[in-house]
Amino acid sequence: MAQPSTQVSPPLKDELDIVIPTIRNLDFLEMWRPFFQPYHLIIVQDGDPSKTIRVPDGFDYELHNRNDVNRLLGPKASCISFKDSACRCFGFLISKKKYIFTIDDDCFVAKDPSGKEINALAQHIQNLLTPSTPFFFNTLYDPFRGGADFVRGYPFSLRSGAPTAISHGLWLNIPDYDAPTQLVKPLERNTRYVDAVMTIPKGTLFPMCGMNLAFNRELIGPAMYFGLMGDGQPIGRYDDMWAGWCAKVICDHLSLGVKTGLPYIWHSKASNPFVNLKKEYKGIYWQEDIIPFFQSVVLPKECTTVQQCYAELSKLVKEKLGHVDPYFQKLADAMVTWIEAWEELNPVAQ
Amino acid sequence: MAQPSTQVSPPLKDELDIVIPTIRNLDFLEMWRPFFQPYHLIIVQDGDPSKTIRVPDGFDYELHNRNDVNRLLGPKASCISFKDSACRCFGFLISKKKYIFTIDDDCFVAKDPSGKEINALAQHIQNLLTPSTPFFFNTLYDPFRGGADFVRGYPFSLRSGAPTAISHGLWLNIPDYDAPTQLVKPLERNTRYVDAVMTIPKGTLFPMCGMNLAFNRELIGPAMYFGLMGDGQPIGRYDDMWAGWCAKVICDHLSLGVKTGLPYIWHSKASNPFVNLKKEYKGIYWQEDIIPFFQSVVLPKECTTVQQCYAELSKLVKEKLGHVDPYFQKLADAMVTWIEAWEELNPVAQ
Repeated sequence: MAQPSTQVSPPLKDELDIVIPTIRNLDFLEMWRPFFQPYHLIIVQDGDPSKTIRVPDGFDYELHNRNDVNRLLGPKASCISFKDSACRCFGFLISKKKYIFTIDDDCFVAKDPSGKEINALAQHIQNLLTPSTPFFFNTLYDPFRGGADFVRGYPFSLRSGAPTAISHGLWLNIPDYDAPTQLVKPLERNTRYVDAVMTIPKGTLFPMCGMNLAFNRELIGPAMYFGLMGDGQPIGRYDDMWAGWCAKVICDHLSLGVKTGLPYIWHSKASNPFVNLKKEYKGIYWQEDIIPFFQSVVLPKECTTVQQCYAELSKLVKEKLGHVDPYFQKLADAMVTWIEAWEELNPVAQ
Repeated sequence: MAQPSTQVSPPLKDELDIVIPTIRNLDFLEMWRPFFQPYHLIIVQDGDPSKTIRVPDGFDYELHNRNDVNRLLGPKASCISFKDSACRCFGFLISKKKYIFTIDDDCFVAKDPSGKEINALAQHIQNLLTPSTPFFFNTLYDPFRGGADFVRGYPFSLRSGAPTAISHGLWLNIPDYDAPTQLVKPLERNTRYVDAVMTIPKGTLFPMCGMNLAFNRELIGPAMYFGLMGDGQPIGRYDDMWAGWCAKVICDHLSLGVKTGLPYIWHSKASNPFVNLKKEYKGIYWQEDIIPFFQSVVLPKECTTVQQCYAELSKLVKEKLGHVDPYFQKLADAMVTWIEAWEELNPVAQ
C-alpha cells in the first residue's frame, strides 16, 4: 500500500492557498521562500487596518485587513474575530482553492535529524493526498508511507481507509502548551523528532493547533470556523481547538480522516504566559463541559454535507452548552452566520 | 507531567517474569543476557516434549513442556494450544508475578538511531509504570515522557489518565506482516525508528502482536488468553490478535490503558509466507466478521473484574460469532475453561 505515497508529487500549485494571519511585517517568509514562493498567499491582517504590513518581494499574495472583512461580509463580518488569530478563517472563506495550508508568522523552517530543511508544505500535501485509517489502528503508523504497510491482523476490508480531510503538523522548539504549563515549565523545549504520521481514530477528539495546519477545503472547509475570540469576547486561544472539535466530530460522521504528526515547523517564540492565562482561563474550565459535549455529539444520518452537519452542530451547541455561559449562545449564532457567509461566497454549482 | 517517567527505575526484579515460547535451543538469550539475566524466565516448550531445549548457563528459569501442561491442568489443558506460539499463555497462567514480558525467540536486541542497544524491557516497564491517556489524544505523544507534556487544549480533568495494562512494542527489520503482504513485499524491511510511545484511544481496536509484549498481569492477565490455534485447529497466527481484541474491549470497559510504540526489538527472520497463508487464510475472512463484533461489544456495567468481563465475552462470542463457524463455539468454550484454570491457579485472597 505504500506505493501511492511515493508517487505523490507536490507542489499542486494551482490547488492550494497559504493563509497567514498577522499583525506585523512578514519577514519570516524569507526563510520559507523556496517552499512558499510558487503558491498564492492570503494574508489576513489583524488589528489596526491603517498599519502597513510589509511582504517580501516576489510573493504572489492578497492582503485583507479589517476594513476588507467588513466590506466583503457586511453584517456577517461579525462572525470573524478581531485581534485574535482566529481571524485566519476569513482566508479559508474567501479562498477558491481545494487545499489550504495555514501557518503562524513565528514559525520557521525546521530541520530533520539529518540536518535537512523540512518542506512542511510538501509533507502536508502528501498527508492530504493519501488516505487516512480512522477505523482501525495500524501499529506501524501511516501504511501509505514508503517502507510501511498494514500489519498482520489489519482487516483487509478496512485498508482502503478514508479520504483525508485534515493534516495536523507539529512543532519543534517551543511546544504548544497552555498558559499553566508554560508557567510551570518555562524552559521546556520540544527536541524530539518523531518520524511518524498517524490517523486520529474515529471517535477520538484531539487538540487541533492552527499553527501548522493543512486541510482539504472541499471536504471540510465549512467546519473550519475558528469561532469568536479576542476583541469583545470573553476568551482567546481556543479558536483552533474549537475548530478542531467541530471538524473532528463532522469528519467522524462523514467518514473522513484526520492525520497528525509530520511535518514539523520550528516554533520560535513562546507567547507571554500571563497574557495567555488571561485569554485562556475561562476556556480551561468551560472545556470540562465542552469535551463531554463533543464526545457525546451524535449527528443525524440525514446530515450528509459538512454544511448540514455544521448547522446541526450549532443547534446542539446552543441547546447543550448554552447553560454553561451566554457566550455559547452567541457562538452558536456566529456559527450560523459563518455557514451563511460560506454558502454566499462558495455557491454550489447547479 | 513528565516527571514521573524519568523517575521510573527498572528493573523491578521480583515483580516480573519473562515468558518465552519455543521449540529450539535458546541461544538467542546470549544477546539479551545483560538485560534478562536478573529476571526469572518461564520457558514454554512447544511441540515434542521429549526434545531437550538448551538454555544458556546463568539464567534463572523454569521450563515446561506439553507433559507439564497436561499434568498441571488435567482436562483443562485442552484450552492451551499445541504446536503454536499461542502456548505462551500457559506461562501467563502459572506466573505469580505482577508483570509479564513475552518475547519470541527470533527477536534480538535492536539499536536506536545513535547506535545504542535498546533495553526493551526497561522501556516496557516505564510504559507500564506510567499512566495511559485513552480518553483524549495528545498530539505530542506520551505526555509522561521526559521533555513532553499535555498540549494546549488537553482537558485538565483527563490528565491523570488511566492505569496502563498493556505495553505493545514494535519491530525493526522484519515487520509483522500477514502472509499476503509478505508474498507481495518479500523484501520490505522496517528501518524507520519512530521515537514515540502512544496510547491507543478508548474505542479503537488494534492488531496486538505477541512478539514483543508486556502487560500488568494483575490488571489484565485473565484476558491474555491466546486462543485455540495450531495443532487440531483450523487456524493459526491469530492467537495474539484474538488476545488483543479481547483485552482491548475489556481495557476500554474497565478504563485501563494500552500503549504502543517503543521499545523496538530486532526481528531477525520472516516466517515462511506459504505456511503462514495456510494458517491464516480462514482468519483473514473470519476477521471481517470478528472485527465488527468486537467493535460493537458492550459489556454490562455489572462486570467489574477482568474475569467477569471475560466470561461475558465468551458468551457473546458463542452467541454472535457461532454462526460464522463452529470453531467459535469451541473457542468460546475454551475461553471459559481458561478462566476456570486462571481462577484455580490464581485464587483471590479472601
